[in-house]
Amino acid sequence: MNYAQLVSEIKRKKSFLCVGLDTDITKIPQHLLQQIDDPVFEFNKHIIDATLDYVVAYKANLAFYEAQGPSGLISLEKTVKYINNRAFTIADAKRGDIGNTAEMYAKSFFEHYGFDSVTIAPYMGYDSVEPFLKYKGKWSIVLGLTSNKSAEDFQLLTQGDGLLYETVLKKFAQRTSKENLMFVAGATRPEMLAQIRKHVPDYFLLVPGVGAQGGSLQEVCQYGLTKDIGLLINSSRQVIYAGNGVDFAEKAKQEAKKIQQEMQRIMEQKMIA
Amino acid sequence: MNYAQLVSEIKRKKSFLCVGLDTDITKIPQHLLQQIDDPVFEFNKHIIDATLDYVVAYKANLAFYEAQGPSGLISLEKTVKYINNRAFTIADAKRGDIGNTAEMYAKSFFEHYGFDSVTIAPYMGYDSVEPFLKYKGKWSIVLGLTSNKSAEDFQLLTQGDGLLYETVLKKFAQRTSKENLMFVAGATRPEMLAQIRKHVPDYFLLVPGVGAQGGSLQEVCQYGLTKDIGLLINSSRQVIYAGNGVDFAEKAKQEAKKIQQEMQRIMEQKMIA
Repeated sequence: MNYAQLVSEIKRKKSFLCVGLDTDITKIPQHLLQQIDDPVFEFNKHIIDATLDYVVAYKANLAFYEAQGPSGLISLEKTVKYINNRAFTIADAKRGDIGNTAEMYAKSFFEHYGFDSVTIAPYMGYDSVEPFLKYKGKWSIVLGLTSNKSAEDFQLLTQGDGLLYETVLKKFAQRTSKENLMFVAGATRPEMLAQIRKHVPDYFLLVPGVGAQGGSLQEVCQYGLTKDIGLLINSSRQVIYAGNGVDFAEKAKQEAKKIQQEMQRIMEQKMIA
Repeated sequence: MNYAQLVSEIKRKKSFLCVGLDTDITKIPQHLLQQIDDPVFEFNKHIIDATLDYVVAYKANLAFYEAQGPSGLISLEKTVKYINNRAFTIADAKRGDIGNTAEMYAKSFFEHYGFDSVTIAPYMGYDSVEPFLKYKGKWSIVLGLTSNKSAEDFQLLTQGDGLLYETVLKKFAQRTSKENLMFVAGATRPEMLAQIRKHVPDYFLLVPGVGAQGGSLQEVCQYGLTKDIGLLINSSRQVIYAGNGVDFAEKAKQEAKKIQQEMQRIMEQKMIA
């Protein structure tokens, strides 16, 4: 899915919600574990069916699939195939390697699984992203600022006339285009997005962990929205584990719809719907 | 394999050679592709049989296995099982994530596959390594300095009174022990190891890409050796693709033996054999 298609899908669905398929076999409803060959895929399939109208992207957290060994990767394979380009897909893998190794990762995520995008760690520099950029219509999503506590260990260190994460944004933005690169922007305070927007005014940002409650979604939009929206806002557990009974998919749908409607209101207010 | 066991194995084999199993299905000898179910595992098995006497560790580059999809991970599973604790095993995965995601990666590499260690990218900070350190007798190998060209993009930026990679070494060393953490130290110039040793005098360093030719191995040892050796020196393609015919394993053995004998000479000179 290219840039124009992604923006068009956001406007059509009036949603920039990304749902994180952090599917943990120990947390899915009990009834799925009985008499079903691949309960992880079955769970994902129900979640996708229930939420697809309200969701523009699905993000699969690779760790949850890898933890099950090769069979977990089969569940992942089936999940991406089931989405079948009906939404933008993100492999949240945070890969970061170089040369022929990065090429192999690109081959894995883009060719084998058929994801639209993959998250990438920047520590090894531009080499880490280059092999991914060779794929037309595919995206790299580079970690800029993350929202975990120890992000401050390195990302928030002063470096030159800014902070390290700002140097990361600037260096990648210098050599790439908003057409095939995004940044992870996990601001713990929404106003940090204003600072991020100074460096990457028109790139898409993948923002983790914003809920429907409180003013956080509105605040993120206040600082982060562009004329093409420019945001994918992720919610994982809040949506997929909204319920834990036989009606788990319906509960997930209600939760996704609630967030989508808030997004629609914001888009209408800003007249970018 | 814990610290004492690793040092003991190095002294017994008189080798601190790590062989990288970067097994690429397009590069393995043609005859293995015929009438064999799992040619990647078959290749690894022959390489391991041929080199085990000269090698203290095997490093599997995850990208090469992941590029084949779930079946590649089955080859990896069989490979680690085949090594069966006869050497130290490294999952070169460069994972870097947090909280429950990092826990899932630890579960994958340590519990599912049974690796001794996994390489970790530091950008998200100490959170990335914490879940791995909870496993007794297992190791985290944090990227310090890498040897690729764009390492300079961030790792060699001035940060505080040193360079970013030095801050990474110092921060992780402050909160960990040499007993279960190593650093990747891919010095492009061997004398950079002297600088690294100032910050982490007694940690093991995983050093990529040193060949038997020239003085590079001796130089790396000059700056990097500790009283417990403290080095794992990796060679991938130079060993595993030393030959490409039916005698590929014999050729790999000769190459591994050549490096091991050079290591033995150095250990004897320094009287740490």
